Amino acid sequence: MAVPPARADGAPARRRRGPYAKSAERRQAIVNAAFEVFATRGFRSGSFREVAERVGMSQTSLLHYFPSKEELLIAVLASRDGVEPVLDPDVLSGLAPDDERIPAVRFADLITTQARANQEVPGVIQLYAVLSGEGVTDDHPGRAYFTERFAGLRADYAADLERLRDLGLLRKGVDPAVAAATIVALWDGIQLQWLYDADAVDMSRALRDYLALILPTSPH
Amino acid sequence: MAVPPARADGAPARRRRGPYAKSAERRQAIVNAAFEVFATRGFRSGSFREVAERVGMSQTSLLHYFPSKEELLIAVLASRDGVEPVLDPDVLSGLAPDDERIPAVRFADLITTQARANQEVPGVIQLYAVLSGEGVTDDHPGRAYFTERFAGLRADYAADLERLRDLGLLRKGVDPAVAAATIVALWDGIQLQWLYDADAVDMSRALRDYLALILPTSPH
Repeated sequence: MAVPPARADGAPARRRRGPYAKSAERRQAIVNAAFEVFATRGFRSGSFREVAERVGMSQTSLLHYFPSKEELLIAVLASRDGVEPVLDPDVLSGLAPDDERIPAVRFADLITTQARANQEVPGVIQLYAVLSGEGVTDDHPGRAYFTERFAGLRADYAADLERLRDLGLLRKGVDPAVAAATIVALWDGIQLQWLYDADAVDMSRALRDYLALILPTSPH
Repeated sequence: MAVPPARADGAPARRRRGPYAKSAERRQAIVNAAFEVFATRGFRSGSFREVAERVGMSQTSLLHYFPSKEELLIAVLASRDGVEPVLDPDVLSGLAPDDERIPAVRFADLITTQARANQEVPGVIQLYAVLSGEGVTDDHPGRAYFTERFAGLRADYAADLERLRDLGLLRKGVDPAVAAATIVALWDGIQLQWLYDADAVDMSRALRDYLALILPTSPH
């Protein structure tokens, strides 16, 4: 997802200040505060009260925006979906500007860079693991979010892999839709193992090795 | 894991009937009853009371064996770890008895057959997803179980893949330890997506395609 547009002086673009915009800003402030509280204190011990205090709001007002802790936690996760990682500037350094492998290298680098970035926010990854597990139950407030998130990720990666296939960069016989679901699955699963034993698994290595298998021209 | 030895007449082998054996049998009866209750009623609505009734035991006695619902649920999952799937008898039908690819075909078939079998017990898979997600939190009774389970699975698959590498059946450049963690991760992750939208993903296809990439001589 795109980041908000910025002006030349680096300040955020001016937004319409109607009631909706104000409410959206307040909502974003709550999500930011919740991220800080849950990332530092853990999401089990972090409380609504702390989040409310941090944004200078009563708990009753906070409940107007987020009726349950689960819904606030899911909003924290959803806000992370829009964050694009900073790509490694060196990743293309060995390639000519017109090297035909560049799209495959960029695709693989975006994923492995994001996986490395996730290691810096273990509280968020833990939150993701717990909620995505709990969300499979029928009545969980996160069920719709995760169902849509998975469908969206699969569609995005499948479209990327179809483009790479059309450029002749996808290994012959690899199905873009299956590989898209596999990337998402491998990523979730290796993060889960990492949360249980961080020293035992190398998240970005596992992803890089799989991507090297399906995009064999990549130098990874 | 091995199944209990059976006598020629099909009855289970005779066991020593000491107090420990009796206690272990009672424990197993509870786990079996809990499996039935949680698989049919769902593990949120299935209760200790129902499990106790089914084994003709008071709830207090049941708490002696399993002090919390989580511990009982984890015992249900652990009991499933020992179940080996029935292998497809046709999987080797196209191969000569001395075909050198047989160990790779068997390895891949064991995994994809188990994945298909899991689709028949969605309640157990849901239970696994919820508990393995919750278990990442420090104080969860499942943390030790899942940490050991993941380490054991990675070690087992890595040993299998090293043997396949020594037989020349593993793709050159594939690291057995990384591939072992990847199989477990992909499996967990694709099951999670399947729980959210069973029509959108094909679990055994995703596993089969990955195994075909790392074991390229496999006819899959």
